[in-house]
Amino acid sequence: MSKPVYVLGGPNLNLLGSREPEIYGRDTLEDIHTRLRVLAGELPLETRQTNHEGELVSWIQEGSAKGSAIILNAAAYTHTSIAVHDALKACTVPVIEVHLSNPAARDAFRQVNYVSPAVKATIAGLGAYGYELALLAVKTLLGQKET
Amino acid sequence: MSKPVYVLGGPNLNLLGSREPEIYGRDTLEDIHTRLRVLAGELPLETRQTNHEGELVSWIQEGSAKGSAIILNAAAYTHTSIAVHDALKACTVPVIEVHLSNPAARDAFRQVNYVSPAVKATIAGLGAYGYELALLAVKTLLGQKET
Amino acid sequence: MSKPVYVLGGPNLNLLGSREPEIYGRDTLEDIHTRLRVLAGELPLETRQTNHEGELVSWIQEGSAKGSAIILNAAAYTHTSIAVHDALKACTVPVIEVHLSNPAARDAFRQVNYVSPAVKATIAGLGAYGYELALLAVKTLLGQKET
Amino acid sequence: MSKPVYVLGGPNLNLLGSREPEIYGRDTLEDIHTRLRVLAGELPLETRQTNHEGELVSWIQEGSAKGSAIILNAAAYTHTSIAVHDALKACTVPVIEVHLSNPAARDAFRQVNYVSPAVKATIAGLGAYGYELALLAVKTLLGQKET
Amino acid sequence: MSKPVYVLGGPNLNLLGSREPEIYGRDTLEDIHTRLRVLAGELPLETRQTNHEGELVSWIQEGSAKGSAIILNAAAYTHTSIAVHDALKACTVPVIEVHLSNPAARDAFRQVNYVSPAVKATIAGLGAYGYELALLAVKTLLGQKET
Amino acid sequence: MSKPVYVLGGPNLNLLGSREPEIYGRDTLEDIHTRLRVLAGELPLETRQTNHEGELVSWIQEGSAKGSAIILNAAAYTHTSIAVHDALKACTVPVIEVHLSNPAARDAFRQVNYVSPAVKATIAGLGAYGYELALLAVKTLLGQKET
Amino acid sequence: MSKPVYVLGGPNLNLLGSREPEIYGRDTLEDIHTRLRVLAGELPLETRQTNHEGELVSWIQEGSAKGSAIILNAAAYTHTSIAVHDALKACTVPVIEVHLSNPAARDAFRQVNYVSPAVKATIAGLGAYGYELALLAVKTLLGQKET
Amino acid sequence: MSKPVYVLGGPNLNLLGSREPEIYGRDTLEDIHTRLRVLAGELPLETRQTNHEGELVSWIQEGSAKGSAIILNAAAYTHTSIAVHDALKACTVPVIEVHLSNPAARDAFRQVNYVSPAVKATIAGLGAYGYELALLAVKTLLGQKET
Amino acid sequence: MSKPVYVLGGPNLNLLGSREPEIYGRDTLEDIHTRLRVLAGELPLETRQTNHEGELVSWIQEGSAKGSAIILNAAAYTHTSIAVHDALKACTVPVIEVHLSNPAARDAFRQVNYVSPAVKATIAGLGAYGYELALLAVKTLLGQKET
Amino acid sequence: MSKPVYVLGGPNLNLLGSREPEIYGRDTLEDIHTRLRVLAGELPLETRQTNHEGELVSWIQEGSAKGSAIILNAAAYTHTSIAVHDALKACTVPVIEVHLSNPAARDAFRQVNYVSPAVKATIAGLGAYGYELALLAVKTLLGQKET
Amino acid sequence: MSKPVYVLGGPNLNLLGSREPEIYGRDTLEDIHTRLRVLAGELPLETRQTNHEGELVSWIQEGSAKGSAIILNAAAYTHTSIAVHDALKACTVPVIEVHLSNPAARDAFRQVNYVSPAVKATIAGLGAYGYELALLAVKTLLGQKET
Amino acid sequence: MSKPVYVLGGPNLNLLGSREPEIYGRDTLEDIHTRLRVLAGELPLETRQTNHEGELVSWIQEGSAKGSAIILNAAAYTHTSIAVHDALKACTVPVIEVHLSNPAARDAFRQVNYVSPAVKATIAGLGAYGYELALLAVKTLLGQKET
Repeated sequence: MSKPVYVLGGPNLNLLGSREPEIYGRDTLEDIHTRLRVLAGELPLETRQTNHEGELVSWIQEGSAKGSAIILNAAAYTHTSIAVHDALKACTVPVIEVHLSNPAARDAFRQVNYVSPAVKATIAGLGAYGYELALLAVKTLLGQKET
Repeated sequence: MSKPVYVLGGPNLNLLGSREPEIYGRDTLEDIHTRLRVLAGELPLETRQTNHEGELVSWIQEGSAKGSAIILNAAAYTHTSIAVHDALKACTVPVIEVHLSNPAARDAFRQVNYVSPAVKATIAGLGAYGYELALLAVKTLLGQKET
Repeated sequence: MSKPVYVLGGPNLNLLGSREPEIYGRDTLEDIHTRLRVLAGELPLETRQTNHEGELVSWIQEGSAKGSAIILNAAAYTHTSIAVHDALKACTVPVIEVHLSNPAARDAFRQVNYVSPAVKATIAGLGAYGYELALLAVKTLLGQKET
Repeated sequence: MSKPVYVLGGPNLNLLGSREPEIYGRDTLEDIHTRLRVLAGELPLETRQTNHEGELVSWIQEGSAKGSAIILNAAAYTHTSIAVHDALKACTVPVIEVHLSNPAARDAFRQVNYVSPAVKATIAGLGAYGYELALLAVKTLLGQKET
Repeated sequence: MSKPVYVLGGPNLNLLGSREPEIYGRDTLEDIHTRLRVLAGELPLETRQTNHEGELVSWIQEGSAKGSAIILNAAAYTHTSIAVHDALKACTVPVIEVHLSNPAARDAFRQVNYVSPAVKATIAGLGAYGYELALLAVKTLLGQKET
Repeated sequence: MSKPVYVLGGPNLNLLGSREPEIYGRDTLEDIHTRLRVLAGELPLETRQTNHEGELVSWIQEGSAKGSAIILNAAAYTHTSIAVHDALKACTVPVIEVHLSNPAARDAFRQVNYVSPAVKATIAGLGAYGYELALLAVKTLLGQKET
Repeated sequence: MSKPVYVLGGPNLNLLGSREPEIYGRDTLEDIHTRLRVLAGELPLETRQTNHEGELVSWIQEGSAKGSAIILNAAAYTHTSIAVHDALKACTVPVIEVHLSNPAARDAFRQVNYVSPAVKATIAGLGAYGYELALLAVKTLLGQKET
Repeated sequence: MSKPVYVLGGPNLNLLGSREPEIYGRDTLEDIHTRLRVLAGELPLETRQTNHEGELVSWIQEGSAKGSAIILNAAAYTHTSIAVHDALKACTVPVIEVHLSNPAARDAFRQVNYVSPAVKATIAGLGAYGYELALLAVKTLLGQKET
Repeated sequence: MSKPVYVLGGPNLNLLGSREPEIYGRDTLEDIHTRLRVLAGELPLETRQTNHEGELVSWIQEGSAKGSAIILNAAAYTHTSIAVHDALKACTVPVIEVHLSNPAARDAFRQVNYVSPAVKATIAGLGAYGYELALLAVKTLLGQKET
Repeated sequence: MSKPVYVLGGPNLNLLGSREPEIYGRDTLEDIHTRLRVLAGELPLETRQTNHEGELVSWIQEGSAKGSAIILNAAAYTHTSIAVHDALKACTVPVIEVHLSNPAARDAFRQVNYVSPAVKATIAGLGAYGYELALLAVKTLLGQKET
Repeated sequence: MSKPVYVLGGPNLNLLGSREPEIYGRDTLEDIHTRLRVLAGELPLETRQTNHEGELVSWIQEGSAKGSAIILNAAAYTHTSIAVHDALKACTVPVIEVHLSNPAARDAFRQVNYVSPAVKATIAGLGAYGYELALLAVKTLLGQKET
Repeated sequence: MSKPVYVLGGPNLNLLGSREPEIYGRDTLEDIHTRLRVLAGELPLETRQTNHEGELVSWIQEGSAKGSAIILNAAAYTHTSIAVHDALKACTVPVIEVHLSNPAARDAFRQVNYVSPAVKATIAGLGAYGYELALLAVKTLLGQKET
């Protein structure tokens, strides 16, 4: 299995670590990606972050064409992007949605979610550790397909 | 008449042909563009697709400044982009909105439409053939202006 | 192919031509029907207008039973008639919805639409010319079926 | 001035007098029409009632073409008919809306009103007497136009 | 007891039997009426169907004046007609509402119901058999009144 | 009958005549009151205007205690004042609501109306002439009571 | 056929007979059950009432596993219980919903209904007699299955 | 560490395995609990299921008082129970919410969620495997607290 | 303790006693104030009523500056006045809201309440006796502060 | 008078005293009940708490049948239980609703209240002391009835 | 230029300085007015504050008649007063709306704004300094008119 | 103070000057920026415009990291971008929101605003001059910080 798992991050995630560390933790996004690579072992990872909705759409398309699975934290675009929703609906590999915090306990406008209804599963509220569980889930899902 | 007609496509339309061909048909976006060029005859076409909202805004501005008309399938941005709406409102050439499928028969969140109230006309539900009718309409509208 | 195409008009369309000609044009409904007949060639047309919701329902049923396609401008009943919606849902021939103006740019209560989700396609905002495109679309659809 | 004033009544008004006389009074619709004719003097009246929305639409069109003014009690169609609304919008003579009871004090679904925003004036809550005031208003409006 | 029971059907019910028989069954409306007549025995039935809202209003008025009870399937007008609602409110004989399918399991716009709050009882979801239960109920209700 | 009819006006009506005369006419509120006094004959009138919600409440209470009827144009408080609503509900004399323009054809926030459900009748859209009809209605209502 | 029909009642139905007898009749729930048993003949009935949502869920599960059909009056839980809805969705026997009164003519909060979209049929507004019609319907449905 | 992890299940989860196995899998709730016990090793588990909202409230209180963490699948009560919400808010041990399917892709009424805003984290859409990830998360959270 | 308790009443409370005595009782506001003074003993009371929103705002400010507590029945302004809300928010003495009747059982527009979220406590539905309980509560609250 | 006053508490009230004592105070529910018993004197009290909606329904029925009045803090069920609402509506003894905190100043979902419109009176925001006022009110109400 | 600029303040602004000084600053309204007078130089100012909606309406009328511009902080009436809205609409001098804090970041009920759509400009969130910017803007606007 | 003030413009602002000059004025964005530079004196400005939401997000992040303040006209993204909202929330320098026109007097969909609740202050409706006031405000805010 040489196809990579795409780990895609949306807007403002590049600020992780320096922004409100008491809430989001002191891990930078690069720290999280590094730990995921260790956990991934031989499974290749393609880790990216963008502030652009259009780029996120293109990467999801690319992940569907060239990857084996996608771990997606669409951040603010979770709540506003039907373009991301459509890209996910067209996706032929499993997608796991991850959120560092618990969106259900936040602003009313974050209760609209265009990502969840278009993905396989959601993991929210466990901080950086949620990414690790998502990778475990991807491994399990890919293992099941192989058998 | 040397100003081109802009044929602009929004997010995920680059997947046409390979995605759910039983719904969207087996034509790729390039196939559609090719057929339009034949139908256009001497009328030049400027055909483009982007996943970026900002790029769509810039292209609509360019179409208004350098083109004679715009045929627009804004895809998902139809339902979320006030920026596209504002660009269309500032547009000084006729715009025809096209949809391959019939958005009225789809998800509730696709019932919000920021494109329709800012364009001349809408053609929906006729698949790739809708583009051809739109080009006919453009020709008629341009012909009327000339006289 | 001897089955006629039904061209059905809803309430107040009998006022076309004399009412606000700067908006709706100076064509009467009869003018539009005449031009359609020329364009139709050997394809027979059955053209009718009514102010009655129930009559529109009956004609849609008749068009489905005895016609090859329906071109429908349900006017105000577009926004209030579930009876028309149900008749369209039971319809076994293709239906093209036509609007002279662009309902999306009008009153809030015209944003409810019971016709669109029950038809094949919609053409709006092109005035009387929209009928001609609809007839082209009907011809194409019928041609496709034949082959 | 020989053009008649159209006095048009909507669904169920033919039941007046026998239905809930303690609320609607013991006057039949014919009684009301008779009193109006006395009050009208030489001004001809065209008095009609229908349970059909489409007929009401046709009569409003006729009143606009052949009459000098319309006194309209659209009854239940007040709250559901955009077709009536459109006919009123196209109307070129003054229209006075009349209601026997006070709709504002009744069911929630009677708070939607498609007639009021399309007419000159509204008189509600005065029972049969409201018709007489409406006729006075029509006379005044016609008198003003003449001068 | 010589006054007939009115069995009134609304728009599109004349299509029963040929339309989607796997859902609505293979019985035509005439089949249903025939079976009801057998079940009715000496109780006379007045069975009618119309696509016109206004006609339904008139028949409910007639049923109230000349009949002993009404069995009503208002079909689409169930969800849009305040005129029918008002006629039912003025009705002095018991009315039983019948639906072949279960509207509660269908479109959102069918959740608005102007008939139910104005009738004695509702029977839904039992297909043609629901009419038979309604007739049983009518017989029971009429029997109770007699005693 | 010596008890006066209270003619009460709400906020900004003191600007009548100078403000947008093409819409509201060139009559000042005093002009209207003067004409009403002529029309009233021996029936005494108590005419007042205030910009204060509380004062309007007090005057309605006073009109109920010392007057024979109230003609009320609550202007903006029509749409915001439950205090006025409560005063009207406690009122023991007939109240006629008057509006110069037709609120149904104006802003969305003017569609909320706390006055209409608490009064006998409403006359809207007839400009200053509406006051005269209201006074006629009051005379008729008082006459009926006397008999 | 030895599997019983479950007749299940929700909260406050144990008060029947003593509570507002002019509305709900003087029959106790036990009276109704007794009459049903007579009507059922050899078809065994399992009649129960509970004020507990969880117990109603368990009984529906039991009715599906051990019964031949369910007659359900979920009372207040009709409008609030998704747990009951889920149990009904998992149910493999036909369910008939019964209401003594007509919920459509009652409070706004009773217009939400989680039972109707998950059952075969609904009978409302016929008081205790509705149960008897429901049992007739069950017998007919079971008879149809047998053949 | 001898305090048990409470694994609590809500209404209808006792049907797992036999109900729609193509959706929910063939695992019974007992199968899931057994696998969790293996994964838990020396960490004691307290596994329970109930159809009663009140019992779920009591168990959450007990889990907070006597347990080290709670894994909660509240099923239908997720969407209706403020009582469960309040019990979770008062809870002093970490709670992980688990759903077998993805509620975001289901009925509109399942988009209301009273559990998510009151818990530490949510894992949805991974079937029975989601429980295993939840247990991993619990172990990690408890390990972090210890250090 | 020489600072008075302010007992403030809003619009139309001056009608108490004569208005609908079967609902509001035969006590005038003065009767209630007199009974409160007996109950207050040495605790001075400052009792006032106004129909003016602005005056109520000023009195709440005065009560906060010069009084020891406020008992407030804002009547209709409860449901419309953000100015009263802001004055209460700035208040530094305890405020007890009183309603004679139970607003929860009245009109929909009385379900908006700007007073309750800005006060210490609410007592509703006990008629004039609610004022006495409010005074007891004030005494208890003031006593607690003293200790 | 030997019939007891029922003092009924809903879900999570059994946590009082240990949960967030800075908000809810350090009194346990038993402390409150004890103080009430002292205040009650010879008037017997029946004090209970449950986490079960169904049990609360049954106890309200019992309180109505065997008690003289009910003091009810339905906690979370206040906002979700139509079953409790129906039980209260059928109740023949006076019911006083009590809340320790002020629900109007809390979450949006606590603004729905099914208890208030079905009870005699409401006392909220005074902590444990609110129970004492409720008992005073009960005594007064019972005394009034006696006389 | 001798016409004064009206600086009008709404309810509770008289509390400025003493109320929550960490939020609203330690400046009293008089301090703000004093600084404005220094900044105004020879431009006369008319500075006022009222808690009465009606007085604010009258002052806006006066400012329009006798002043050169209005600086308005309507405070709570911003969100509830259509009377203020109407007065502003009739205003013939430029009006600048000022808010000390940022209403967009406050309660939901402060998101309704009847002032903004009726004024020239809005300055919010800059505390007392916002008044100074408003005066600068007024000067610039008046200067532009002069030229 | 060498850190620049970022002056950031959103979509379609590059059209300023040529588009509807009677509304937006004849100044181009570059004209505005030039005037601001003159006004800024030694305070360096970083002036940019983009049609891309993602680029606006990145620039706000950059302005927070390298600038002293931000003047932001997010144009259409004001109403749709939670990504911009999140970037602003993470911003550690003061942000002043500017709008050329008054959004409160425009389309309903422009009443949603994700920028205002995340910034220090807002200035709207003063055209290009609003930028100059915003720069004054920035200077004052920076001066206050220095002291």
